[in-house]
Amino acid sequence: MSVSSSFQSVLDRIATEIAATPGRGRPADYIPVLASADPQRFGMAVAEVDGTVYGVGDWQHPFSTQSITKVFTLALCLSREGEELWEHVGREPSGNPFNSLVQLEYEAGIPRNPFINAGALVVTDRLQALTGTAADTLRTFLRAESGNAGLDFNEQVATSEASHSDRNAALAHFMASYGNIRTPVPLLLDQYIRQCSLDASCADLARAAGFLARHGILADGSSLLTRSQAKQINAVMLTCGTYDAAGDFAHRVGLPGKSGVGGGIIAVVPGRCTICVWSPGLDERGNSVAGVAALDRFTTLTGLSVF
Amino acid sequence: MSVSSSFQSVLDRIATEIAATPGRGRPADYIPVLASADPQRFGMAVAEVDGTVYGVGDWQHPFSTQSITKVFTLALCLSREGEELWEHVGREPSGNPFNSLVQLEYEAGIPRNPFINAGALVVTDRLQALTGTAADTLRTFLRAESGNAGLDFNEQVATSEASHSDRNAALAHFMASYGNIRTPVPLLLDQYIRQCSLDASCADLARAAGFLARHGILADGSSLLTRSQAKQINAVMLTCGTYDAAGDFAHRVGLPGKSGVGGGIIAVVPGRCTICVWSPGLDERGNSVAGVAALDRFTTLTGLSVF
Amino acid sequence: MSVSSSFQSVLDRIATEIAATPGRGRPADYIPVLASADPQRFGMAVAEVDGTVYGVGDWQHPFSTQSITKVFTLALCLSREGEELWEHVGREPSGNPFNSLVQLEYEAGIPRNPFINAGALVVTDRLQALTGTAADTLRTFLRAESGNAGLDFNEQVATSEASHSDRNAALAHFMASYGNIRTPVPLLLDQYIRQCSLDASCADLARAAGFLARHGILADGSSLLTRSQAKQINAVMLTCGTYDAAGDFAHRVGLPGKSGVGGGIIAVVPGRCTICVWSPGLDERGNSVAGVAALDRFTTLTGLSVF
Amino acid sequence: MSVSSSFQSVLDRIATEIAATPGRGRPADYIPVLASADPQRFGMAVAEVDGTVYGVGDWQHPFSTQSITKVFTLALCLSREGEELWEHVGREPSGNPFNSLVQLEYEAGIPRNPFINAGALVVTDRLQALTGTAADTLRTFLRAESGNAGLDFNEQVATSEASHSDRNAALAHFMASYGNIRTPVPLLLDQYIRQCSLDASCADLARAAGFLARHGILADGSSLLTRSQAKQINAVMLTCGTYDAAGDFAHRVGLPGKSGVGGGIIAVVPGRCTICVWSPGLDERGNSVAGVAALDRFTTLTGLSVF
Repeated sequence: MSVSSSFQSVLDRIATEIAATPGRGRPADYIPVLASADPQRFGMAVAEVDGTVYGVGDWQHPFSTQSITKVFTLALCLSREGEELWEHVGREPSGNPFNSLVQLEYEAGIPRNPFINAGALVVTDRLQALTGTAADTLRTFLRAESGNAGLDFNEQVATSEASHSDRNAALAHFMASYGNIRTPVPLLLDQYIRQCSLDASCADLARAAGFLARHGILADGSSLLTRSQAKQINAVMLTCGTYDAAGDFAHRVGLPGKSGVGGGIIAVVPGRCTICVWSPGLDERGNSVAGVAALDRFTTLTGLSVF
Repeated sequence: MSVSSSFQSVLDRIATEIAATPGRGRPADYIPVLASADPQRFGMAVAEVDGTVYGVGDWQHPFSTQSITKVFTLALCLSREGEELWEHVGREPSGNPFNSLVQLEYEAGIPRNPFINAGALVVTDRLQALTGTAADTLRTFLRAESGNAGLDFNEQVATSEASHSDRNAALAHFMASYGNIRTPVPLLLDQYIRQCSLDASCADLARAAGFLARHGILADGSSLLTRSQAKQINAVMLTCGTYDAAGDFAHRVGLPGKSGVGGGIIAVVPGRCTICVWSPGLDERGNSVAGVAALDRFTTLTGLSVF
Repeated sequence: MSVSSSFQSVLDRIATEIAATPGRGRPADYIPVLASADPQRFGMAVAEVDGTVYGVGDWQHPFSTQSITKVFTLALCLSREGEELWEHVGREPSGNPFNSLVQLEYEAGIPRNPFINAGALVVTDRLQALTGTAADTLRTFLRAESGNAGLDFNEQVATSEASHSDRNAALAHFMASYGNIRTPVPLLLDQYIRQCSLDASCADLARAAGFLARHGILADGSSLLTRSQAKQINAVMLTCGTYDAAGDFAHRVGLPGKSGVGGGIIAVVPGRCTICVWSPGLDERGNSVAGVAALDRFTTLTGLSVF
Repeated sequence: MSVSSSFQSVLDRIATEIAATPGRGRPADYIPVLASADPQRFGMAVAEVDGTVYGVGDWQHPFSTQSITKVFTLALCLSREGEELWEHVGREPSGNPFNSLVQLEYEAGIPRNPFINAGALVVTDRLQALTGTAADTLRTFLRAESGNAGLDFNEQVATSEASHSDRNAALAHFMASYGNIRTPVPLLLDQYIRQCSLDASCADLARAAGFLARHGILADGSSLLTRSQAKQINAVMLTCGTYDAAGDFAHRVGLPGKSGVGGGIIAVVPGRCTICVWSPGLDERGNSVAGVAALDRFTTLTGLSVF
């Protein structure tokens, strides 16, 4: 693809193809508010590094960001703490389902990477220690970078998640037993759950992730991350961003990406653009069926894979 | 870096820096012929997609390729068998040491990816079934692509490996119990060991891997792999190519890569060039210490990371 | 040994032999009050089924019973709930260290047996639901059966344990995520910790465990358990009572037994007597070094092994 | 039960009860010769320590002994090698299915106990080193102790097993990689498979196991094992003799026992008698359904449990 302006035609084409595809998976069903999502919903947005945004379908419709926020929390923590962060959370794929306790036990309370739940809890714990309020810090950041001042927590989602938090409580207490969590567990879970409860649209998230395509530079031209740190986050997205399907995602899409069980996925073309796609139906590994298919088509049509 | 001709100056600069760096790790010691390698050896070569090769240090000195050959065996098998191959071997990171039996047991004899020993045995089994002689097929290919007609098996290495093959025999029999290996185990091990015993230089391997930078096109312009297949191999190299350090390698180097316990590493800049570096001293995860450091410097100096 | 009266001479002989044995292991050190125990302490008591008690050394000195209480909690729960209990906790050896989370994950929140921490938490949860106050129920029982009305919780131990309860909190939340824990976790941990904090002497415990030698009959002649239930508890003590050393204990001692990290061990000769031994130094698997040695001598001298 | 002569009436009563019980499980189906067994077959024999034998049903009908032979191989090895054997094989329950590779990997090639396949391979390896012919040594022993000179290998079973030996080959090679197997693997497997292929009747096995009830003394009054060694074998039978159901077996039956997938089980009442029961239908854990039920009734009717 030689000119950026054709992003719009690529998106239009993908939307048409996806609309013709039956079988979209099933929305996450562990909390009612996610289970009630319409699997026919589909939106996709591309934000160029200069801030221009293209979109199709439900690209301006807010949805539950869930684990996509783990990327932003990681960036906010890494920018403040630097390399020391990596002594408390690894950056290797887990080779196990996303909330497994097994690996934690073998590796003495150090989670494999920041995108499994255990790792995200450690990152949230550290951001909480650095800022006093991890969730608000994240909301402030996403509002600024997306340009959407109304972006906010979804209280209904947060309340539902809070009543299903035994697994995460187990992870947090387990890591605390190794000294790798310092925030009191109930407070930590509250901050963690609030982050995951943020609602945002494809447009919001594509814009907000722009610093990953701009080698660490924020929308206002200031620097959040060093070039090396931005590269680190893209690398961990590519190797660990899509639960136990990172290899398959790299294989099909070939871009750094991060998915959430709300059906959203963000992806990065370093130096060029960020993409966000949303459709609530998930495959058995927790990734949006139509979302992965749309990104697969995107890199095929544009040639914009990293490989 | 704007012009290719400066690859030479980059290599020269890296060699100077590496020479000044003490602490190179330890050569593999499970067989005598590897243990006796000199950890001060260092060579590095870059092959552009047009075939031009640049080199420094011991870049023309043959060394034991070991697991680097797994990339070529995979390409030769994938080109013949296509997508069906992925029903017999996965493409997800293993999250476990490279010869673990645990994951195999949980996943009913299907190895996680083609670069752990179990997965490479499956690929060799399939190539053996397709060609009748997997090792010779590989040697013929490497001779043609490297342009080095003398490239050959190292009988001393093969003999040593054969007397240390109980782990691989266990893996092969275990997968055979699930029906995922069809070649008689002693024959399979012989073919597998011969492949790993191939000696080649950085120059040889950088040239021979060129099809991965040329989107599947061989040195003579014919096509070994489709563009999609070439991308698949780069993706699996990035997520699984360096044992249990794939995340760290992606983080530091940011290129698809594959290492061997002989101290070699190959890496790919899609569309641009392939790189091979060699130095026998290994870190605790089995990757060349100086090799990873040199590739880290290479992407930093040239900006040629995929992220 | 033909006459009971010789139990005293057996105990005297064992005490003499133990006194001459150097090397007693190390007291548990995860809380200060246990770490400060004197490893030279040694006491042993035998209670015949008719209530006659013999003792030697520190046999009347109270110590921290810790996991020994798991036997009594199990009996109190089984007597009230019957066979249904076994749908919530298994009765197979764990083959893993005593607080492992791995097995729980594979077996969907059903602990392998009632003597690993996870299993004891389930039993406590159920006794709490049945009685409203598991710890007080246990204390009342032990006071009645031991005849020691002053037997009580050690508040210093309970407070210390409460500040080291992250592992058990993780286990409880994890099982709650599978629906196998219903008591709120903080309340459950409080009850669990209070049970483990009970102080008692060898004489107290040998007497209190008498119902296991009397096929379920309490000191006052009433029935706590059916003959079959008493046999069940002896069986689970023999196969699971000494952490990951049950096989070794069966091999050396050959009696149903249950140990605690306070250095105590109780053992049962069905139909004949119960034994309690105490010495704070532990081996690497958490069992009293002098305690196991003394029981080994006891069965050798008396021939009273079940094998 | 006060007099031995009533063993016959106990057996008759059990046979009547079992005959009225529908649902007998399914014969092992991994080799045809076992799969074709009639699940309605049932036999049971009791041999008193003085050699008197009682029987009912198909008690004189030969069946495939399979893993029951592991007890005899263990005794023959322990009698020759003594305590040193326990440095090469453990005596703890495995907490895992009987041919798992996982535990072996964690514990550096030392199997948990002599009754999982890995452990039996180690014992066979050692007996082979001590005698030059493990299988013949075993056959000679069983012929002598059972008084049945025609007791022999079943060539059809051995041939079938040999074509399904990949799992055991994997185990053997894996342990060889740790130095815990010295016999060439094909020879070891041949010896192992021949042992398991022995056919014997309930009468044969009850007699042959008599030394375990006689504290190590053989039929002719000579000593095979010390009293302590005989106790060791009974202990390991109780904690590890029935695959992953040892706790359940101890709970229901309360005797040292060892089962085989041919549907046989032997059990020991130390000092009193040995029992062998056979019925080919297995439960999901590999133990004879009618066999366990019959032993459960036996200990209930006679009170001869060790608990």
